[in-house]
Amino acid sequence: MEIFGVSVSSEDPTSRLRQLLGEIKVIIFTIDGVFTDGQISYSESGEEVRTFHARDGFAIQEALAKGMNIAVVSERESKAARKRLEEIGVTDITMGVKDKMPTYEAIKARYGVSDAECVYIGDDVMDLPLFEKVGVSITPLNGVEYLRNRVYYVSGYEGGKGCVRDVIEMVLAIQGKWKYYEM
Amino acid sequence: MEIFGVSVSSEDPTSRLRQLLGEIKVIIFTIDGVFTDGQISYSESGEEVRTFHARDGFAIQEALAKGMNIAVVSERESKAARKRLEEIGVTDITMGVKDKMPTYEAIKARYGVSDAECVYIGDDVMDLPLFEKVGVSITPLNGVEYLRNRVYYVSGYEGGKGCVRDVIEMVLAIQGKWKYYEM
Amino acid sequence: MEIFGVSVSSEDPTSRLRQLLGEIKVIIFTIDGVFTDGQISYSESGEEVRTFHARDGFAIQEALAKGMNIAVVSERESKAARKRLEEIGVTDITMGVKDKMPTYEAIKARYGVSDAECVYIGDDVMDLPLFEKVGVSITPLNGVEYLRNRVYYVSGYEGGKGCVRDVIEMVLAIQGKWKYYEM
Amino acid sequence: MEIFGVSVSSEDPTSRLRQLLGEIKVIIFTIDGVFTDGQISYSESGEEVRTFHARDGFAIQEALAKGMNIAVVSERESKAARKRLEEIGVTDITMGVKDKMPTYEAIKARYGVSDAECVYIGDDVMDLPLFEKVGVSITPLNGVEYLRNRVYYVSGYEGGKGCVRDVIEMVLAIQGKWKYYEM
Repeated sequence: MEIFGVSVSSEDPTSRLRQLLGEIKVIIFTIDGVFTDGQISYSESGEEVRTFHARDGFAIQEALAKGMNIAVVSERESKAARKRLEEIGVTDITMGVKDKMPTYEAIKARYGVSDAECVYIGDDVMDLPLFEKVGVSITPLNGVEYLRNRVYYVSGYEGGKGCVRDVIEMVLAIQGKWKYYEM
Repeated sequence: MEIFGVSVSSEDPTSRLRQLLGEIKVIIFTIDGVFTDGQISYSESGEEVRTFHARDGFAIQEALAKGMNIAVVSERESKAARKRLEEIGVTDITMGVKDKMPTYEAIKARYGVSDAECVYIGDDVMDLPLFEKVGVSITPLNGVEYLRNRVYYVSGYEGGKGCVRDVIEMVLAIQGKWKYYEM
Repeated sequence: MEIFGVSVSSEDPTSRLRQLLGEIKVIIFTIDGVFTDGQISYSESGEEVRTFHARDGFAIQEALAKGMNIAVVSERESKAARKRLEEIGVTDITMGVKDKMPTYEAIKARYGVSDAECVYIGDDVMDLPLFEKVGVSITPLNGVEYLRNRVYYVSGYEGGKGCVRDVIEMVLAIQGKWKYYEM
Repeated sequence: MEIFGVSVSSEDPTSRLRQLLGEIKVIIFTIDGVFTDGQISYSESGEEVRTFHARDGFAIQEALAKGMNIAVVSERESKAARKRLEEIGVTDITMGVKDKMPTYEAIKARYGVSDAECVYIGDDVMDLPLFEKVGVSITPLNGVEYLRNRVYYVSGYEGGKGCVRDVIEMVLAIQGKWKYYEM
C-alpha cells in the first residue's frame, strides 16, 4: 500500500492493536486519574468527594451485559468510588493495595486468563509493573508524561472524562459486541 | 450567490435549520451530558452531586414564560436534577426510563404535536432512536463522537455549559420571542 | 505616534479606558457567572454549592482596605455566596432582585456617586440596562456572546476564575493604590 | 556548542536550575492556587470544600519517604486542607498567617538550612517577599501574571493539577532519588 508515494507496512500499529484487543477477556483499571480525573475534594468535616462520568458508567454496564469481565484495583480505599462502581454493576473491586501485582495475579486466576487476555488502564508510575505484564497497556490522555512512550496506547480521552469508555468501546467493537464505533 | 467565485445554494443548511426550528413547539432534552457536563460526584456517605449552569436555567425560565413547552427525559433517577428543574419551573420530568420512546410518544400526545414540532438534545448512543424521530436532533459540542454526523445540529456549547441555552435561544429567536441573538 | 509606519491616534481605546477607570468610586458586580463560573451544584439532599476563587477574594479585601466601595447585586438568593462575601468583608449585598435598576439607584445614593463613578461587571442579557447606565461596563471572557460588542471592556479572565480580580487590579492600579500591575 | 549555527552558552538556564535544585533540602508551598486550583466551594450550610490532586499527594509521600523535608504555609485556616495534608504524611503545616516571613524563618531554623536550600512555590503577589529570599522561586502555570518574570521557574502544570508533583519530581530526579523523570 502506498500513501503519497510512500509504501506503508500493512502491519501498521492500528491493525496490531486491533489484533491484540481481539484477545481481551478482562478489562482492568485503577480509580484515581483513570475512572476519575485525579482530583479529590475534601469538605471541612473531612468527607471526601470523587467525580465520575456518566458515559464511563454506561460503557461498563454495556460491557458487563455483553459478558466482558471488569476488574478494578486501587492503592486507596474510597467509599465513594466503591458506591459508584457497585451502582453500575462492578463486583470485582480491590482497594487499599500498595503493590498491585498480587491482585493482578488473583484476577488472572479468577477468570482463568493469560496476560495476553488482560488490558490495564493506569495513569501513574506505580502502574509500570502491571504495564509490563498485560497484553495491552493503556494510559489516559493526561496520564503522567513518563508513561507516554511506555504504554501500547494513549487514549484520546482524559481520566474521568471518557477514557474508560474509549477503551471499552474499542474492545467491544473489535469483538463485534458494540456497533456504535468507527475506528 | 457567489463566494470567492463559487456559487452557493441559497437553500444552505442554516436556512433549512431556521425553517425547521420555526416549527418547534416542544424542546426535549436529557440530563447527564446535556443539562450537566456528564460528571457525577459521590461523597463518602453516598450522596450524589450534579452540576448545572445558571445560564441554562435562565433560558428555560424565559422559554416557559414565552409559552414554549419544555420536557425532560432521563435514564437515571436524580433528586438533585429534579430539584434544579422544579426550581426553574420545569414540570414535565420523566426519570428512570431505559427506553425513552414511550415517554417521547406520551410527550407528543400531551402537547398534541407531531415529530416535526419536537427538538431533542441528547449526548449518547441511547438517544439514537429519538434522534431518528424528532424534527431537529441536536448534540452538545462534547456529545459522543458517533453522534457527530448523525444529528442535524452540533451545538457550539458543551453539555452543562450552555448547550441548552444555545438551543433555546435559537428556537425563540427564530420564532420572534428572543431579541438578544444574532445568527 | 507611528507603529510600523502607520500613525496611531494617541487617543487610543486603552488610554480612554484608563481615564474612565480613574473616576471609579464603586465596583459593582453580580454573582453567578462573574463571582462564580456560573455553575451551580446540587446534592441529592437539595443543598446548593457554589464555587469562588481565592484570588478574587484577596483582591476584594485589598480594595476594601484601600477605601474602594464594593457592592454586589444578584437575581438569586444564595446563602453560600452570602457567606463567602461576608467572610472577605463585603457588606453591601443585595440578592433576589429581578430588576437590578432600583438596587443600582440605591447604591449610587448610598455612596453619593454619579453613573460615571460606577463600574459594573455582568455576564448576561439581564445586565444590559445597568450596562447602559454605568461609567464602565465589563463582562468576563466567557460572558454571553450577545454582550461582547455591547460592553466597554471584555476581561481576559473568566467568571469565577479571576475576572473580578482583573477589574479590581486595573481600577486600583490606575488610581495608584495597587503596585503589582503592568498595563 | 552551536545550534543552527548559533553558539549557545553552556551555562544555559536549565543547567543553572539543575544546579540550584541540587542544593534543595526543604520544599515549601502554599495551599490555595498551588496545592489546589485556587477555587473554594461553599455549601448553603456554610461548609467549605477544597480540591486536591492524587498525583501531588503521591509525590509528597515519595519525597517524605526519600528524606526530603516538606513544609506548608498558608494565609487561610482550612480544616479540609489540613486533613488532606496529614493523610499524606505532611506534619509541618502553618495556617492563618498574613505575613509568611516569620514562618519561613522558623522553617529554616527547624531544619538548620540556608535560603539556598529552600524552594518555595507560590501563586500570588503576597508571595513576593519569600520569592526574594529562597534559593529557587517557582509559580504554577496559572500563577498571577505579575509573577511570571519575577520567579526563577514557571511550572508547566497548574495549581492543584500537578504543579507540586512537577517540582518534587525535578528536585528528587536531580538528587538521584526519582528515576521516572526525563529532563
